[in-house]
Amino acid sequence: MITLETPIVKELVKSALIEDIGPGDLTTDSLISPDKTIIASYNSREDGIISGLPLLKIIFSRLDPEIKIETYVKDGEKVSSGRKIAQVSGNAAAILKGERLSLNFLQRMSAIATLTDKFQQAIRPYKAKICATRKTCPNFRIFEKYSVIIGGGSAHRYGLFDGVMIKDNHISAVGSIKQAVELARQKIPHITTIEVETETLEQAKEALEAGAEIIMLDNMPVDVMAQAVKLINGRALTEASGVVNLENINKIASSGVDYISTSAITSKAGILDIGLDL
Amino acid sequence: MITLETPIVKELVKSALIEDIGPGDLTTDSLISPDKTIIASYNSREDGIISGLPLLKIIFSRLDPEIKIETYVKDGEKVSSGRKIAQVSGNAAAILKGERLSLNFLQRMSAIATLTDKFQQAIRPYKAKICATRKTCPNFRIFEKYSVIIGGGSAHRYGLFDGVMIKDNHISAVGSIKQAVELARQKIPHITTIEVETETLEQAKEALEAGAEIIMLDNMPVDVMAQAVKLINGRALTEASGVVNLENINKIASSGVDYISTSAITSKAGILDIGLDL
Amino acid sequence: MITLETPIVKELVKSALIEDIGPGDLTTDSLISPDKTIIASYNSREDGIISGLPLLKIIFSRLDPEIKIETYVKDGEKVSSGRKIAQVSGNAAAILKGERLSLNFLQRMSAIATLTDKFQQAIRPYKAKICATRKTCPNFRIFEKYSVIIGGGSAHRYGLFDGVMIKDNHISAVGSIKQAVELARQKIPHITTIEVETETLEQAKEALEAGAEIIMLDNMPVDVMAQAVKLINGRALTEASGVVNLENINKIASSGVDYISTSAITSKAGILDIGLDL
Amino acid sequence: MITLETPIVKELVKSALIEDIGPGDLTTDSLISPDKTIIASYNSREDGIISGLPLLKIIFSRLDPEIKIETYVKDGEKVSSGRKIAQVSGNAAAILKGERLSLNFLQRMSAIATLTDKFQQAIRPYKAKICATRKTCPNFRIFEKYSVIIGGGSAHRYGLFDGVMIKDNHISAVGSIKQAVELARQKIPHITTIEVETETLEQAKEALEAGAEIIMLDNMPVDVMAQAVKLINGRALTEASGVVNLENINKIASSGVDYISTSAITSKAGILDIGLDL
Amino acid sequence: MITLETPIVKELVKSALIEDIGPGDLTTDSLISPDKTIIASYNSREDGIISGLPLLKIIFSRLDPEIKIETYVKDGEKVSSGRKIAQVSGNAAAILKGERLSLNFLQRMSAIATLTDKFQQAIRPYKAKICATRKTCPNFRIFEKYSVIIGGGSAHRYGLFDGVMIKDNHISAVGSIKQAVELARQKIPHITTIEVETETLEQAKEALEAGAEIIMLDNMPVDVMAQAVKLINGRALTEASGVVNLENINKIASSGVDYISTSAITSKAGILDIGLDL
Amino acid sequence: MITLETPIVKELVKSALIEDIGPGDLTTDSLISPDKTIIASYNSREDGIISGLPLLKIIFSRLDPEIKIETYVKDGEKVSSGRKIAQVSGNAAAILKGERLSLNFLQRMSAIATLTDKFQQAIRPYKAKICATRKTCPNFRIFEKYSVIIGGGSAHRYGLFDGVMIKDNHISAVGSIKQAVELARQKIPHITTIEVETETLEQAKEALEAGAEIIMLDNMPVDVMAQAVKLINGRALTEASGVVNLENINKIASSGVDYISTSAITSKAGILDIGLDL
Repeated sequence: MITLETPIVKELVKSALIEDIGPGDLTTDSLISPDKTIIASYNSREDGIISGLPLLKIIFSRLDPEIKIETYVKDGEKVSSGRKIAQVSGNAAAILKGERLSLNFLQRMSAIATLTDKFQQAIRPYKAKICATRKTCPNFRIFEKYSVIIGGGSAHRYGLFDGVMIKDNHISAVGSIKQAVELARQKIPHITTIEVETETLEQAKEALEAGAEIIMLDNMPVDVMAQAVKLINGRALTEASGVVNLENINKIASSGVDYISTSAITSKAGILDIGLDL
Repeated sequence: MITLETPIVKELVKSALIEDIGPGDLTTDSLISPDKTIIASYNSREDGIISGLPLLKIIFSRLDPEIKIETYVKDGEKVSSGRKIAQVSGNAAAILKGERLSLNFLQRMSAIATLTDKFQQAIRPYKAKICATRKTCPNFRIFEKYSVIIGGGSAHRYGLFDGVMIKDNHISAVGSIKQAVELARQKIPHITTIEVETETLEQAKEALEAGAEIIMLDNMPVDVMAQAVKLINGRALTEASGVVNLENINKIASSGVDYISTSAITSKAGILDIGLDL
Repeated sequence: MITLETPIVKELVKSALIEDIGPGDLTTDSLISPDKTIIASYNSREDGIISGLPLLKIIFSRLDPEIKIETYVKDGEKVSSGRKIAQVSGNAAAILKGERLSLNFLQRMSAIATLTDKFQQAIRPYKAKICATRKTCPNFRIFEKYSVIIGGGSAHRYGLFDGVMIKDNHISAVGSIKQAVELARQKIPHITTIEVETETLEQAKEALEAGAEIIMLDNMPVDVMAQAVKLINGRALTEASGVVNLENINKIASSGVDYISTSAITSKAGILDIGLDL
Repeated sequence: MITLETPIVKELVKSALIEDIGPGDLTTDSLISPDKTIIASYNSREDGIISGLPLLKIIFSRLDPEIKIETYVKDGEKVSSGRKIAQVSGNAAAILKGERLSLNFLQRMSAIATLTDKFQQAIRPYKAKICATRKTCPNFRIFEKYSVIIGGGSAHRYGLFDGVMIKDNHISAVGSIKQAVELARQKIPHITTIEVETETLEQAKEALEAGAEIIMLDNMPVDVMAQAVKLINGRALTEASGVVNLENINKIASSGVDYISTSAITSKAGILDIGLDL
Repeated sequence: MITLETPIVKELVKSALIEDIGPGDLTTDSLISPDKTIIASYNSREDGIISGLPLLKIIFSRLDPEIKIETYVKDGEKVSSGRKIAQVSGNAAAILKGERLSLNFLQRMSAIATLTDKFQQAIRPYKAKICATRKTCPNFRIFEKYSVIIGGGSAHRYGLFDGVMIKDNHISAVGSIKQAVELARQKIPHITTIEVETETLEQAKEALEAGAEIIMLDNMPVDVMAQAVKLINGRALTEASGVVNLENINKIASSGVDYISTSAITSKAGILDIGLDL
Repeated sequence: MITLETPIVKELVKSALIEDIGPGDLTTDSLISPDKTIIASYNSREDGIISGLPLLKIIFSRLDPEIKIETYVKDGEKVSSGRKIAQVSGNAAAILKGERLSLNFLQRMSAIATLTDKFQQAIRPYKAKICATRKTCPNFRIFEKYSVIIGGGSAHRYGLFDGVMIKDNHISAVGSIKQAVELARQKIPHITTIEVETETLEQAKEALEAGAEIIMLDNMPVDVMAQAVKLINGRALTEASGVVNLENINKIASSGVDYISTSAITSKAGILDIGLDL
């Protein structure tokens, strides 16, 4: 599972601080006495699901190890507009320098968690689970995948290294789905599953017979998807993909697929309005 | 001006490649012969403004210095759906490994350029220019600011280090706008301008008298903004800020402000549909 | 699959060159004219399987992009003592500076490939496949896992992030194997399989019923292992683990397990004698 | 002297943690409550000399600064199988995530210290001291050289930058041992000594006359070595090299050399069985 | 404003420690018991202005977080020879390892602050303020610019990214000063000012008319400078540049310019004699 | 020997480029067409010894691999004012971005080489050789030590890791010079020499008897130094240290010491006036 308590996250926070602060904060370092302390509250100004709170400590402890963070909700909690979600207290200059970065994380991550939840709610009676894709913002993937999980979705593979996804150009390079699955199986570790992207019922059948653990039903009409699910009948996991939005997702889910993967939850989430009030 | 031909960009591309590829591409390295070569085209599947093309060379030359890139449009060009914007040819495995990252850059960056242009078009008869803010995705700022410029907007300050922005908490810490501007002026380099965030006509007047070069009119009703612009009368640049969207921006521009800054162009742009076709 | 053509490998080669060369090569830079060129051959002085040849280009191109590498075998090829495996030609000083590092890679990696092959040969009539573990040398894992593959083995999971392995302390923390597998299944991506470490027939049965995809039979007597394999009967993959060596591995394989994982192939391989002759 | 309390070591530990944990620990983060604490003991399961204990604090403090480490032996201490060497207590998830890396360090490093001691013991009545070489695992040299010292050996030069070693190809490039030593002497700092690799009595004599501080007797029959030692007669340090193992080392030492350098102590040490018991 | 409390500074300190300590301190680690503690004082052995004291904590806390720092003056304070400026107490080995680096920072930085003050004092009755340039030591700029501020000068632009400086080759590339200023104005953010380098009265006039905020009077005779200042008459800031030294600076200042920029204060400062006494 | 053709140098150049260029060059990127090419000459405007020319290729190839560098002198060559030392041709924007950094390197490094030569010339009839110290600019040591060598001096130890220097506080911690040398000898590699800092004839004698290879005569009156040299009589190398300048160095050299180490050559060199003319 993806967590924010990993060495990678610390490195990304460090470089993001350098990106914003560079050689110094012209305004704060000119105007705020180095001894001044303040207390400031993170408040949500929109309803949503919060994601990213563990980053507050990671961000501010780099600027000043003495800064205190209190959190009033946990990542994944649904909050209403006006809810105080965290408090930061300590050196004023350090807090003002970290303010923007902390909000940039919280706003983007909470928006993703919130939108994931909306997609998940939209398919309520059905069993399908929403998944992220690799269509994430460069150098921000861990925060996006994490927030999808926080919002009730699933991360899917993290990168090219932890899952096999056989697409059309792999298939055409090898000759057939059957050959591609067999060849991959020989080469990958036994812990690794194989997913095959299919666009027709026929391909889905071929993937199933080739032994794919997961069959992606890509851009299929929903009735074809339903036939594919029926055909597969639990012998492989099914994953719908293609153009997915809040309007059509319930219908897609009605096909009986196990998973629906979509980049919409990460790329179209925007930001959740969260502010820091002094 | 921000360009993609900087050492920083190369470092960010390198870490983004590591993020996605990690110890190897399970699928491609299993299925694609290391000698195979391909030609693939980047095609836009939506109308929009392209941003990020110089990254193709930076990305693929890291994976294989022999890969050839040809581009058919330039960053900033408006393209229609279906337009072939670039072509990559060479080692198949390297192209497949870089495909996702290249698209993740192009799609996000082009969406920002496209949305910036829409905002800019929406205020056509007026002189105001759209600006970005610091509300960008951590470790992705250079690509967002660049794309705003490509879309016809302006980058505003890059970080805390290249411009002064005096906000309410700075003012309250020092005592008054006047004192804050004076104190900052003593401490900052002479090349640096001072912007003051104001919320009332009175504050705008005070900032002007204090000598601010730029006066932000934050969350003011448009008629008050117009009065502020009149009052300032060219003696400082004016910048509208607050809730800005495609619906209200024309009205805001009608106030006569010089600049309208908004995080919407970067945080709500989503992605422009661009694909790589083999 | 793990390859050496990844951005990570370049970074590791860079830091290894800095480790060895630091501020300069006292001997070579004192004695060798910067214009001198040489040709040198990598020769195997032992029978074995070669691994690591693609690193030659990565190492030497960092020292001097003009250096030419020719390779006469491919990674994975069995060579006899005396076989010329590669040739490097160009700037003498650069070649002498990279000599030791290139050999340190080739010798360790080829020894791992060679030992993996020996283990694999030792279980010839049986179906079991040898796998690596996470017991690798810090910051050298990619080279060890790669060499195991080159030697005919399998990489197993790369790290903590690409596979689930439920061990006794995870089980005791959750309560039972059943609960642990269920809880993990809810939290992990659908592309990820679950392996459970078991020490008794009973535990193996419990893991099977809980739905584990892979059941590790850890430190079991071979007859118990055989019973476990029978009990599982293909409904999960089986992996033997524990004290594994060239003496007992054939007997372990006779139990019918699918995989045998052992750190011996990476930690006890030593070095294969390869030299660079001018 | 090499210590583990250096900034370099922290960087290597950081990258090794990223290598193993990546974006997260699928198993532990799924199953272990973030509030759970545990106590675990490092126990030796073999007789040997412990090396690497200071790394425990460096590893675990990166994962959780609250984790407590107690050590019951010091690096260099000889322990029997069953001896509890250290204890780690605190956050369970952090301990489980650092477990493998801490053992990978301790096992390899202790094995090197133990084998170095065996080599040193094997030449007991003689004055010779065992030395490491540059034939170390890339990016792991500091830990190998340190462990050789801990095991009673000596580090030799660390890299190309802190000692001169004139080998045959340097000699042939310059013309003669005499010219090589003279040329090097002019160019290197006065704090730096010159070692010359010799293969015959004649060469040893030439090196002595050229003023080498250290004369390596490489691959010489032991009786020739003894003659060389006699000839040199304390006017330079002597260092035996070549094929060195536990069988022939006593005989080599009997030649009267001051040092015996061998890559065997680092490349053939394997691992010492140390476990972490909860 | 530039401060030492930024993430960049920590990274530079880390790499400088690695530069000096590498794999270990041969002397200290051989001779000083790891348990020994000491108290040592930083004393100025020359009159001057101290700069760099906040680095003591950053340097020593990396070597040993337990080390205590007390400072008796603040950066910017004028001290006489013999004045105790700081005290470091704690682990002896860590203090001895950090001693040289801490002095290398303090001595260079204090010399720059001291020389800046001398230049500033030398123009006392005049309004001009001394500024740094970009002619700084690679990878040491933040410490030089900071020390200029500490010495009473101004930092000028930090790099190529936070200010526009139009020089002769830019002008000749575009065609005229007027065109260059106009083109730049269109492309740069509105927060950014434009400085134009001029060498004649005519050029100064042209720059003024083109709307430059700052006009550099480069290598002009002082009487021409005075005429330029008169001509500009406060409509732009004026900055003298060229060969500036303690002999001619008062005369330059008498021209009435607002700023005098010179690399002398950073490149010719040498070191201020500060010692660490145990 | 220290060279600029090492991986470390490339990393330092990369970070220095980021320091100066950051997210982009506001002036050049606004005004210079990306297609424009230029030719520019590096000319010396002062007599001196050139150091740093190999950096031109390293700097500019990072900005644009197509840029061509021609050099007309070699590092270490004495040039007169007006001499054209190198030429750079290619992309104008890239050349303008790298101009300042290339000059910052060349000017500082050539000044150090030039001053080292002056010191060396000043002691002409005597055998003493000038040496650098560790009193260098943080993160710039390799360039300073290299330039001292280029100027005819010697680098001395590079850092704490490649030479032993026993100072008063080491001595007092251990008890006596004798004990310190003995203890160090046991712990350091046999390739490493021991230098002892002495302040009296007595101490020099003690160091000699203890077996120090190098005896530093620190801050001794010249006649005492001469006595020390006589006493030591070639049985150890002698190194004068203390306040060294162009006025007193000839007298110091007359004492007969082998080496004179001084931070003056690096810390007081300033810059040599070299310009880039288009």
